[in-house]
Amino acid sequence: MLPFTEQDRSIAEALAAHHAAVGAAFERQLASDLPPVNVLCRHVERYRGKMLRPTMVFLSGMACGAVGPKHVLVAATCEMIHMATLVHDDVLDEAEIRRKGHTVNHLRGNEVAVMLGDYLISNAFHLCSQAGDPALNLRLGEVTNTLCEGELVQLHHREDLSLDERTYFEIVRRKTAVLIGACCEMGARLSGAPEATIDALGRFGEGLGVAFQIQDDLLDLEGREEVVGKSLGRDIEKGKLTLPMIVHLARAGGADRAAAIEAIRSRDGAALIGMLHASGAIAEARARAEGIVAESRRELAHVPAGPARDALDAAAVAIVHRDF
Amino acid sequence: MLPFTEQDRSIAEALAAHHAAVGAAFERQLASDLPPVNVLCRHVERYRGKMLRPTMVFLSGMACGAVGPKHVLVAATCEMIHMATLVHDDVLDEAEIRRKGHTVNHLRGNEVAVMLGDYLISNAFHLCSQAGDPALNLRLGEVTNTLCEGELVQLHHREDLSLDERTYFEIVRRKTAVLIGACCEMGARLSGAPEATIDALGRFGEGLGVAFQIQDDLLDLEGREEVVGKSLGRDIEKGKLTLPMIVHLARAGGADRAAAIEAIRSRDGAALIGMLHASGAIAEARARAEGIVAESRRELAHVPAGPARDALDAAAVAIVHRDF
Repeated sequence: MLPFTEQDRSIAEALAAHHAAVGAAFERQLASDLPPVNVLCRHVERYRGKMLRPTMVFLSGMACGAVGPKHVLVAATCEMIHMATLVHDDVLDEAEIRRKGHTVNHLRGNEVAVMLGDYLISNAFHLCSQAGDPALNLRLGEVTNTLCEGELVQLHHREDLSLDERTYFEIVRRKTAVLIGACCEMGARLSGAPEATIDALGRFGEGLGVAFQIQDDLLDLEGREEVVGKSLGRDIEKGKLTLPMIVHLARAGGADRAAAIEAIRSRDGAALIGMLHASGAIAEARARAEGIVAESRRELAHVPAGPARDALDAAAVAIVHRDF
Repeated sequence: MLPFTEQDRSIAEALAAHHAAVGAAFERQLASDLPPVNVLCRHVERYRGKMLRPTMVFLSGMACGAVGPKHVLVAATCEMIHMATLVHDDVLDEAEIRRKGHTVNHLRGNEVAVMLGDYLISNAFHLCSQAGDPALNLRLGEVTNTLCEGELVQLHHREDLSLDERTYFEIVRRKTAVLIGACCEMGARLSGAPEATIDALGRFGEGLGVAFQIQDDLLDLEGREEVVGKSLGRDIEKGKLTLPMIVHLARAGGADRAAAIEAIRSRDGAALIGMLHASGAIAEARARAEGIVAESRRELAHVPAGPARDALDAAAVAIVHRDF
């Protein structure tokens, strides 16, 4: 995802080595003595794709000092938490495709997917506990509590056509942004950064997370499944209002509003996307994501200059311009 | 569940106080700033019933020394892990009734139940992390890994009519017994017991857990829903072979075996139960549970004599004689 230039070559190489260490931690952690469990774990390992969360832990750490084994543990833990949410989200969304392959729920049924997600959550906490640092466990527990709250509130608002922007942003902050913010914060803290830098990186990551989710919602609306690599159109199918729809409903009056509501109720994605384009709601949602990224990038002024900070900056830009 | 005599009055009173502390820890831990989340948590708090796991933590602790705040944290954590498994098990079993009320999946749908279970798992780890004791986190992570493995292997063997006793006992050990064993072990360890006593109590609890699960399986076959208070007949409905069925299939020949397989395949619970009674398979499963309890009780010889040890012994007997 990161567009590395010639000068960042050293960053790219360091990241590749750290990502390999995360992969090794995954293999070690998920090795079970039970063959049916191993088959499932090998399947979900294919879900590791963008490695956004480990990247944020490592780049934040590298920007603030040295990166060590605790960074690898935290990065692997956050990626495993993320994979658990993917497995359970696919159950909730009845998704069939993930990373260009079949989802666990599609291949093996919802029951196996529910238990496999639980197994990943449990292993994530077990992995994190190996750092022997109670503050890390406490922080990650707090983050996953918040993440689940975001998902629960989102479910509570399914089919809620009066969902407002404030609630939408609160859901997104909790379910997506808090984990990415914590990756930056913990990466910096483990490298011995001062509190002001840790806080700035936490805010940077949280902003990035919000923008990332808006971009995800845009891709769910108008991405191409063969490029994005996962089931799309799930938000409309599941009655989940996202930013473009909220913006559109807030600004549309009379017949336009009624037509949009009818398209949402009847799951008519094509008609809805046409309306969201015509009213400028999609363009506005994209602009909001770009505005949030611009604001987040300003937080990097509190971070020591250097190639790792440049890479964080490049990652922020890439997040709203990705098409996968 | 425990039949206290006049002499154990002090144990009963101490347990009641400790259980109240667990209740308070639950309320504190699950208090969210989000009303929809609170409504769900209040609903599942009704699932706290027998409090078997906290009881094992406290009695094991009391038998070995003093009981303190860490016992309360561990007891509340184990009960919360147990509640999370109930919420997800009810999704897997499509159960409608739990503790004489409706299940979350029945009332609010599978999606909410999946996320609420995740929220409880996450809160359990967050709660446990508050003890500031990395060894506890590591041990509990190990226990929940094993628990999920047990559930995954059980799912793997659904509709498997060749499931043997060895695999059945391995599933039961992992999905039920290991957590109850860990409750006894951790309770003793936190009270400063010597390793030999900790190990004996661990084995005691694990045996109890196996017997508990066999009794649960027997109640699922022939309990009365209004007494047990939860949906029954789920094992047959879900193609889950339990000990009486395994014993029966192993000993029945020719036409008897074919008839039993036909009853299992066609979900004909009444016919199957008739066969299991006639062949003595139900009586044998009950005898096995009683044998395991007798063996477990012998482990108590390694535990200091006193009213707490007597209460552990009484709990062991009660577990195979309960009808709820």
